Amino acid sequence: MARIALDAMGGDHAPHAPIAAALLAATELGPDHTLQLVGQQAVIREELAKQLAAAGPEAQAAAAHFEIIDAPDVILMTDKPSVAIRGKPNSSMGVGLKLQAEGKSDAFVSAGNTGAQMAASVFVLRLHEGLQRPAIGTVFPTATQPVVVLDSGANVDCSAQELVNFAQLGHVYAKDILGRPNPAIGLLSVGEEAEKGNAAVKEAHQLLLKSGLNFIGNVEGRDVAMGACDRGPIDVVVCDGFTGNVLLKFYEAVPKLFGGLMLKAGVSKETLGQALSGLDYAKYGGAPLLGVKGVSIICHGKSSPEAIKNGIKAGLRAVESGMSRHIGEKVHA
Amino acid sequence: MARIALDAMGGDHAPHAPIAAALLAATELGPDHTLQLVGQQAVIREELAKQLAAAGPEAQAAAAHFEIIDAPDVILMTDKPSVAIRGKPNSSMGVGLKLQAEGKSDAFVSAGNTGAQMAASVFVLRLHEGLQRPAIGTVFPTATQPVVVLDSGANVDCSAQELVNFAQLGHVYAKDILGRPNPAIGLLSVGEEAEKGNAAVKEAHQLLLKSGLNFIGNVEGRDVAMGACDRGPIDVVVCDGFTGNVLLKFYEAVPKLFGGLMLKAGVSKETLGQALSGLDYAKYGGAPLLGVKGVSIICHGKSSPEAIKNGIKAGLRAVESGMSRHIGEKVHA
Repeated sequence: MARIALDAMGGDHAPHAPIAAALLAATELGPDHTLQLVGQQAVIREELAKQLAAAGPEAQAAAAHFEIIDAPDVILMTDKPSVAIRGKPNSSMGVGLKLQAEGKSDAFVSAGNTGAQMAASVFVLRLHEGLQRPAIGTVFPTATQPVVVLDSGANVDCSAQELVNFAQLGHVYAKDILGRPNPAIGLLSVGEEAEKGNAAVKEAHQLLLKSGLNFIGNVEGRDVAMGACDRGPIDVVVCDGFTGNVLLKFYEAVPKLFGGLMLKAGVSKETLGQALSGLDYAKYGGAPLLGVKGVSIICHGKSSPEAIKNGIKAGLRAVESGMSRHIGEKVHA
Repeated sequence: MARIALDAMGGDHAPHAPIAAALLAATELGPDHTLQLVGQQAVIREELAKQLAAAGPEAQAAAAHFEIIDAPDVILMTDKPSVAIRGKPNSSMGVGLKLQAEGKSDAFVSAGNTGAQMAASVFVLRLHEGLQRPAIGTVFPTATQPVVVLDSGANVDCSAQELVNFAQLGHVYAKDILGRPNPAIGLLSVGEEAEKGNAAVKEAHQLLLKSGLNFIGNVEGRDVAMGACDRGPIDVVVCDGFTGNVLLKFYEAVPKLFGGLMLKAGVSKETLGQALSGLDYAKYGGAPLLGVKGVSIICHGKSSPEAIKNGIKAGLRAVESGMSRHIGEKVHA
């Protein structure tokens, strides 16, 4: 059984969305796991009562297993990370992560201020030795199987060694969370030849060849969309957080662009929704902050209850698979 | 009237595609402009005769205005740029560009080896003073108006000053080729705040504020897909060639990914084709190599006759608008 701390105050739709997600998750996961709702106690109790009044007996039973943990400070989406950590030590993030550091919780899940969550996670949980910074691994739906792209925004300027670390982190993520037995790792570049790429990528290519990972060489933008290159399927795409973040945000906007064109051409909303359902980010839940000693799941600020519920499930998989321990071993290997 | 030199040997489908493109262009543009077919004379004559035998009287009349210019060497798609320039001075690229340097031609268009075309263009035409390297500007179809993204692959490691130069080149391109009177220039980054981005982007942001260009600040991946950000429409997106190339290749693969999902959901091929026709890259023809003293249009190796024809038209627009002269003025301003 696992104890998952959920930031009840984080996200554009808090506290409604996290509390609704907790009810969905508890119903789905059953009483074996404990959900810890962290935030301003009065706000949580009020929102929970409101949602339970409209819910069925299943949700009522599930909520009986919730722990409510008071955290008086609230981090705003607009707070600077440094201000959030130093100025608001008793925020839902601070309290939720401290529970984990003290061995009273196994994972932390939030849809709140991403920068603050990253900074607080590193500050409270610490990084595995050998890592300079954490990375965010985001699952991209593709034409074939989903691939994990990292870093997707935590590190904008990356050295070759950091790219190699991302490959190690991605290896563990793909194995533990996506269930790929021997993850195929591609290095994002502008051509498949080893000599193509910017300075950091060219150096990282050489280091990856000697890394002992299943490195399949450089991959290009199109290969990310296809989930495969001419050397076979891809499980992990390694890139700096600048490129990864630009690509992720571009990709997130593409269904809107394509959907608009389809509707104009007379395709019905129902058909469109059905076609694009496989690309729904909510399915893949949150992105783990990789490299910290523990589990910290970052959900999109706009997350629906369904998306946060999947973030909770991602946290559970990370706990049950021993992802953080495996990362520690891989980075030292 | 303009004289446009066309690389008859360049591209995956040469000589068929360039010759067919020349016939389409000549028919459409009329006898005011001269098309110069550059390549192995015997090959060109044979292919032209074959296509004319199957063509109507319009094409026959158009072809009467062709100049055929012999270039015995052939650059392969796999040749290294340096080898192609030094070892094959009498290639279609070498000869076609020299015509322009000698004042006997106004523009060069090719679907051949991009690296070789870039190197040969810089070598033969030279760069405008003040520029270190040329840039490739690619037109991205968006949810609204098309935007020009540059650099989209010529320069993988870029300094802040180079990003500012791309903004100047993009300004002239958007004005002269896309007809935007006061191009809105966005700097691609991971957040809209000035302090977001990698080191080069953060420095470029400050330089762009003082550049005299219509700089609208940082834009993100989603804004590229939308063709707009919350500050209004975007005409030019400035980025290093690594990010630009990854984004371009990703985007090129997306219709395949989305199209597959639509067909699976029961949308007909006809409806799909109609919906996606606005995203057809062929429409926008080739991408000018920006920064050289003259006009060199780079077409995709896979270009259809229609795409190369649009490359020829892009070359004509560049000549008629005085794009190269305007770039020289802008870089020195």
